[in-house]
Amino acid sequence: MDDIKRFLDRPVSFLDDTGPAADIAISTRVRLARNLAGFPFPNAASAEEKQQICDLITSAVRDSRVLDFDGEHNEFSPGELDDTGRQLLVERRLASKEFVSSPFDGKRLMVCPLERCSIMINEEDQIRMQSIRPGFQLQEVFREINRIDDELSCKLDYAFDEQLGFLTSCPTNVGTGMRASVMLHLPGLVITGQIAPTIQGISKLNLAVRGIFGEGSDYRGNLFQISNQSTLGESEENILSTLSAVIEQLVFHEKRARQTMLKDDRYGVLDYIGRSYGILRHCYKISGEEALKSLSGVRLGVDLGLFNSVDISKVNELFIATGSAHLQANAGIDLSSDERDIRRAQLCREKLKF
Amino acid sequence: MDDIKRFLDRPVSFLDDTGPAADIAISTRVRLARNLAGFPFPNAASAEEKQQICDLITSAVRDSRVLDFDGEHNEFSPGELDDTGRQLLVERRLASKEFVSSPFDGKRLMVCPLERCSIMINEEDQIRMQSIRPGFQLQEVFREINRIDDELSCKLDYAFDEQLGFLTSCPTNVGTGMRASVMLHLPGLVITGQIAPTIQGISKLNLAVRGIFGEGSDYRGNLFQISNQSTLGESEENILSTLSAVIEQLVFHEKRARQTMLKDDRYGVLDYIGRSYGILRHCYKISGEEALKSLSGVRLGVDLGLFNSVDISKVNELFIATGSAHLQANAGIDLSSDERDIRRAQLCREKLKF
Repeated sequence: MDDIKRFLDRPVSFLDDTGPAADIAISTRVRLARNLAGFPFPNAASAEEKQQICDLITSAVRDSRVLDFDGEHNEFSPGELDDTGRQLLVERRLASKEFVSSPFDGKRLMVCPLERCSIMINEEDQIRMQSIRPGFQLQEVFREINRIDDELSCKLDYAFDEQLGFLTSCPTNVGTGMRASVMLHLPGLVITGQIAPTIQGISKLNLAVRGIFGEGSDYRGNLFQISNQSTLGESEENILSTLSAVIEQLVFHEKRARQTMLKDDRYGVLDYIGRSYGILRHCYKISGEEALKSLSGVRLGVDLGLFNSVDISKVNELFIATGSAHLQANAGIDLSSDERDIRRAQLCREKLKF
Repeated sequence: MDDIKRFLDRPVSFLDDTGPAADIAISTRVRLARNLAGFPFPNAASAEEKQQICDLITSAVRDSRVLDFDGEHNEFSPGELDDTGRQLLVERRLASKEFVSSPFDGKRLMVCPLERCSIMINEEDQIRMQSIRPGFQLQEVFREINRIDDELSCKLDYAFDEQLGFLTSCPTNVGTGMRASVMLHLPGLVITGQIAPTIQGISKLNLAVRGIFGEGSDYRGNLFQISNQSTLGESEENILSTLSAVIEQLVFHEKRARQTMLKDDRYGVLDYIGRSYGILRHCYKISGEEALKSLSGVRLGVDLGLFNSVDISKVNELFIATGSAHLQANAGIDLSSDERDIRRAQLCREKLKF
């Protein structure tokens, strides 16, 4: 198993701000849920069965080299990590909360070097594979995970039903087993008060809106993940094109909201951006939530061309590096909540100097 | 009459931060109320009588040259100034709100070049003379105004009663006609929640606690003016020594509160200071009240030796320069409240660069 600490020194590739529509779309992610024919789903499997499943899948991934982008990949067993290590994977969006919760039997995470593609073994389904990239690029991300899925399907016998499609642990994933999501930064819609009706509208289209840390998380940092709800009875192409159309609309509305804000209250926008920066640059204690909120304000400033003093990559880096587990892992010692707030502030002050 | 705009380019001398205990005591002020024998008090006098009184006093001041510290003094008639000019005098603590309110008949303000000594004619009393200096120096300030009073008494026949002392328009000033006050910066007592009982205690000692702009103003900027209430039946020396003892106690308690804060929550204090600076340095809109509050935070940082990046004189300058009338006068055009907030922010950003 690999050393989790090695992750800390690397920026998160899906936050490199190079993707299409990167001023609003932070990242695009597609994950596929798969299970093996003839084996029970993880929640019905014994520890031995889960280990057997894990070994089978691990071998298939290793042998097919689907994750060996630079000639290698990383592997982690949540049961072998400490709490910080497990939480680190969640903050980097490589693992779900369920995956890092006990029981850990037969669980394994396999990650390509740049963390763009990864596979969770024995989460809710036996296989959860994902591809994630910066910006708005559903087709490209889907093509990548589809290629990995195709290669693995040559080595593994997926549980598949001609009528229903791929069989999954939870009925909501049966069919394509696909969840595609785009993370959007929507400060304009939030500030102009349009976000609540927008979310309502999206929900009616059978799409889900979630916070930065997935199901049940709040909308901190003005970050919203939009994803498909239905997986059954629709082709992957249909799901992706519906989601694409909605994301395009949201990007359009966010752009319009930002322009309206600038037109109606330019100094109000400048003030929002400036204070966000001022707090991050000069605070000595800051909660994770306030840090994300303030980073959102700075990002808005950079995106609007109103604040060019800081490198956007440093802002993006802080979205992840200010996470509690990242702070904890970097410190190398146990930190109280207060100590984390102090170290988070120190990190923000230093990274945002100009 | 002098051009009020000339004032704007000069720092306020009582804020030069050079006085004793300057880390807590901002300034010391003593004013004397006097009236002429044989003339009615201003509120009972006709316009003609007030003009006659004004002429008499003006001549005495000019002839005695008590205000001609550098060979000259300034004179202003509130009726000849616009609203901004009048408000400017209040913000510089040269005139009271009552003095700059109509009717303006026979009102005149005479000021020494550095604004350390000034005389209002036909405010509530015919003569209100004050001396103000930085820091905590009651004796020195009293000596100065006493000297001016002595010289004027050679040229003017004061209304004086052997039994009561100096006669004044309002009974609360009869006797010495003196009000001595010290402006204290008490963020430590405010933050540690000790200010309310402290104010209660002071009030029981027959002293008054007022905000930065005198009677009825709020305690913005953590600034408190402590002054004597009684003027009758006590000698000037007694009044000053009682006030002195209380100020010394308050300075002691404030120092202790600051040390307690630092000991109990050093990062909380640093955070308070840093955020205060961060807001002033990066905001694009700020109200007068928030500006004073934030300036208080920065001043605390400088006073504690925790924040040496800015020159304290610039911080002190902003306490006055962020006043609405100062912003208005500097702009030279009428400003809405919103426009003032924008210009105030611009001024703070520029002055606090480092």
